[in-house]
Amino acid sequence: MFTDKMILRIPGPTPIPPRVQMAMNQPMIGHRSGKFSALFARTAERLKPYFGTTQDVYILAGSGTAALETGVVNTLQPGDEAVILVSGAFGERFAKICERYGVVAHRLEVPWGKAVTPDLLEAFLKEKPQVKAVFATYCETSTGVQNPIPELAKTIRAHSDALFIVDAVSCLGAVACEMDAWGVDIVVTGSQKAFMLPTGLAFLAASERAWKVIEANKSLAFYLDLKAYKKSLADQTTPYTPAVSLIFGLAEVLDMLDEEGLPAIIKRHELMRDMTRAAMRALNVNLMADDAYAAATVTSCDPQGAFDAEALRKVLTKQYNVTIAGGQQHLKGKIFRIGHMGYCEPLDVLQVISAIEMSLHQIGAPVELGAGVKAAQEVLIAHV
Amino acid sequence: MFTDKMILRIPGPTPIPPRVQMAMNQPMIGHRSGKFSALFARTAERLKPYFGTTQDVYILAGSGTAALETGVVNTLQPGDEAVILVSGAFGERFAKICERYGVVAHRLEVPWGKAVTPDLLEAFLKEKPQVKAVFATYCETSTGVQNPIPELAKTIRAHSDALFIVDAVSCLGAVACEMDAWGVDIVVTGSQKAFMLPTGLAFLAASERAWKVIEANKSLAFYLDLKAYKKSLADQTTPYTPAVSLIFGLAEVLDMLDEEGLPAIIKRHELMRDMTRAAMRALNVNLMADDAYAAATVTSCDPQGAFDAEALRKVLTKQYNVTIAGGQQHLKGKIFRIGHMGYCEPLDVLQVISAIEMSLHQIGAPVELGAGVKAAQEVLIAHV
Repeated sequence: MFTDKMILRIPGPTPIPPRVQMAMNQPMIGHRSGKFSALFARTAERLKPYFGTTQDVYILAGSGTAALETGVVNTLQPGDEAVILVSGAFGERFAKICERYGVVAHRLEVPWGKAVTPDLLEAFLKEKPQVKAVFATYCETSTGVQNPIPELAKTIRAHSDALFIVDAVSCLGAVACEMDAWGVDIVVTGSQKAFMLPTGLAFLAASERAWKVIEANKSLAFYLDLKAYKKSLADQTTPYTPAVSLIFGLAEVLDMLDEEGLPAIIKRHELMRDMTRAAMRALNVNLMADDAYAAATVTSCDPQGAFDAEALRKVLTKQYNVTIAGGQQHLKGKIFRIGHMGYCEPLDVLQVISAIEMSLHQIGAPVELGAGVKAAQEVLIAHV
Repeated sequence: MFTDKMILRIPGPTPIPPRVQMAMNQPMIGHRSGKFSALFARTAERLKPYFGTTQDVYILAGSGTAALETGVVNTLQPGDEAVILVSGAFGERFAKICERYGVVAHRLEVPWGKAVTPDLLEAFLKEKPQVKAVFATYCETSTGVQNPIPELAKTIRAHSDALFIVDAVSCLGAVACEMDAWGVDIVVTGSQKAFMLPTGLAFLAASERAWKVIEANKSLAFYLDLKAYKKSLADQTTPYTPAVSLIFGLAEVLDMLDEEGLPAIIKRHELMRDMTRAAMRALNVNLMADDAYAAATVTSCDPQGAFDAEALRKVLTKQYNVTIAGGQQHLKGKIFRIGHMGYCEPLDVLQVISAIEMSLHQIGAPVELGAGVKAAQEVLIAHV
């Protein structure tokens, strides 16, 4: 087994394309140089279509959690109330960040594997007219559920003045996002998922409505104070030292994304989702998310005791050098999650499926070899 | 489709491992520096086990053909006679090089797809006691045939004083080679096959018997004069400018090969061969080589009119970004060849098979999706 050839199929970090890796290897330049300023401003500009916004996109050196926290500390004050849509681990993280800052977090919780639907939200909102913000997770990485953001936005706009703040960390760049058209106020994401970069960059865009709130808001933090980023971006720079090499890489990623085109990228991810789901069904492996809310970037499977998910993952890693994810929190050890986003193509999905079915066979699960691959091939062939 | 994600499954050049690519990116150093000399000498030394020799291995900046020519011009003179075992395009190349230098080339030809067997060689040699050298191809890349080098060597040693000169370009580093034990006089190979490097390096080792001939021989060439390389290697250097970055890469390749270990490498290639052949049989695709002489590094398939090999290759390239090889010379357009060597693992074989079966389906060949993958999975599972 080649130690540098791990087949990385977790829901982020995702594999880095060689041309992006090469771009990041460019010699270092000063982050206050004119050369870097021009690159930075152009690169930030080029992110806008992926957010579906005409607003500026801010690039922070930080992880996805930094992006989530930025969404909280710039819009709320201690004592403010917020609704948090919790459909898994990352919804809960939004709630915890709110509580750290003294925000009253009203959790609208659904069982893991389910989506938050507009009717649930409408009923919940009606009882809380005073909330300042609603936080939602676009793709709940922990369960493979994609929440219906456009419909949720419509519900909020119809029933509340709250800002709608969306964590799109594990899907932006792979799925549709029409922030302006849908009426979403803040969208945040990270670099290490569909943007095919190493971890280390957080991206954020805010609506005009959100900016009014942000400008009037006493920021609860320093490094994550969006007003500083806004002031700097007007000068084509950042308030604090940017991650220069990651920006080199991001520029190359945007070349790749633009070359493929967002509609084709979205279709590719939907196809990989459909292939993965067809394969798991053919192997009688239970899918956590319903078809209507299945994430385009990650598929969660819950064997429900039919076999040991951790044993499967161990065989995959040890014998085939394939890494998929396990469960988080109360699902730790119980489920497995297959990432299919970013630098991943349908043929890569067939490869991971072939490895999963062999591993299932080897741990004694009653699967027919080739059956999952065949089901996925049929989905793929119908698309080409 | 990602333009930098071509799935390269031709019988060389093969994919470059990332760690080798990184090693080649090291800053340039002078080729007459002590640092380079030490690296070069150590690297040449480390090649010996892959040749199965205690003799020095020479590294030339040049292609595989340069290596073949080196084997000719250092051992023969115009008017000398040689036997060339021709089982495909590369055997014929040896013959052409001989003829360019006025050597009388006696071709022992077998149909493409067949191996040269010891009994054929014995009968042929008996009629030509005067030949100075016998040239053979270890893996005939054009047909996927692996000639029985140890047995052929035994036959030559028993019936002739001729040198035995072997082209191992498309297999050395992936198959057994016991040059000293088998009584092979010269083995030549290139960097871009099982050695996982870009094209550009030729490797050659010669027996003591061969060196006696070489020392007494008036070299017909300058750049390819082995005596110059011998003199230089004694001083840890090369007579002409070496390909420095490729030597950086070769040192890293040798780390990788040594880590896996030659016995495991040989087994991996045999496994990939067996998987590929089982899959093609399950898809009713005709294999060119018999099991006994099937190459470990490349599998040739001859559809014999059942479908259009070029149509298959086009779909593979266009829809799946998978590159396999077509036929050469009179087989151009008629056959296809799947490379499975170097930086290639069993899961990569499953991936290329899944792409081939979908493409066959798409060009209207009567294949059952998943059948080839299943057959290959069964071979793999039996090994793990």
